[in-house]
Amino acid sequence: MSAVPGCELCAAASPAGAWQVVAADERLRVLRVLDAPAFPAFYRVVWRAHVAEFSDLAAADRLHCMEAVAAVEQALRQALAPTKINLASLGNVVPHLHWHVVARFAWDSHFPAPIWAAAQRPSPGDATAQVASRLAAVDAAIRAALAGLTPGRG
Amino acid sequence: MSAVPGCELCAAASPAGAWQVVAADERLRVLRVLDAPAFPAFYRVVWRAHVAEFSDLAAADRLHCMEAVAAVEQALRQALAPTKINLASLGNVVPHLHWHVVARFAWDSHFPAPIWAAAQRPSPGDATAQVASRLAAVDAAIRAALAGLTPGRG
Repeated sequence: MSAVPGCELCAAASPAGAWQVVAADERLRVLRVLDAPAFPAFYRVVWRAHVAEFSDLAAADRLHCMEAVAAVEQALRQALAPTKINLASLGNVVPHLHWHVVARFAWDSHFPAPIWAAAQRPSPGDATAQVASRLAAVDAAIRAALAGLTPGRG
Repeated sequence: MSAVPGCELCAAASPAGAWQVVAADERLRVLRVLDAPAFPAFYRVVWRAHVAEFSDLAAADRLHCMEAVAAVEQALRQALAPTKINLASLGNVVPHLHWHVVARFAWDSHFPAPIWAAAQRPSPGDATAQVASRLAAVDAAIRAALAGLTPGRG
């Protein structure tokens, strides 16, 4: 499927400072979100083809997509021991299939509310910086895990 | 895995008016949410065993779980032609694996914001009632689809 003009997730490059590519295979890319400072360990699994809904994918592609989501989740859990992982595929604004994978901490600005709700407290700088200092290791773990998923079989 | 005392998703019965069971198999239940009137077509896929995170499931269980989520999504799309489907597994408050599957409409009170963000407009009663009138058909489609998923193989 070809890129859809104006779709920011079809575009190869990130809008300035929005995200960076951490890992990729033939069917999907894993991005680290850079423009949500309250949530430093925030990744997205973005399907390469422009489809809107999860159920637009064939079953084998759904499997591969969710095994990639689970791999990102596992990398976050092992490196950061977060209070909870939040997963979401919304796409109301950008209807190109992408999964948010966010490590949540009891100390973060919104916990236990969803990241889209109102903040409940300021972001603690020290704890946020400590998480940020470990993201290179998370990125490496995600790259290794994605490489280990057998293409076509999840 | 046995039920965890105090976990409302381990409990067999709904808190009064919170949800009703639409379909179930050995591993999961599909609930229709009753206490979110702005989002009449709001379902949850709840894993029966008390696990917190998606990646706590074995691969075969992840597959079955997400094929059930996709089946609910497809039933909503076919019956209601929503503007978008929203999927999320958060669990910050109730850390027992459950997937929200919500049909969103351009006219709903929050669109295009997530359902957890601030409302952008009042809920339109007529459109909401029209969706509500079709939920029995959605429920029936979900039951049929879940019965068609081969246990153990998704």
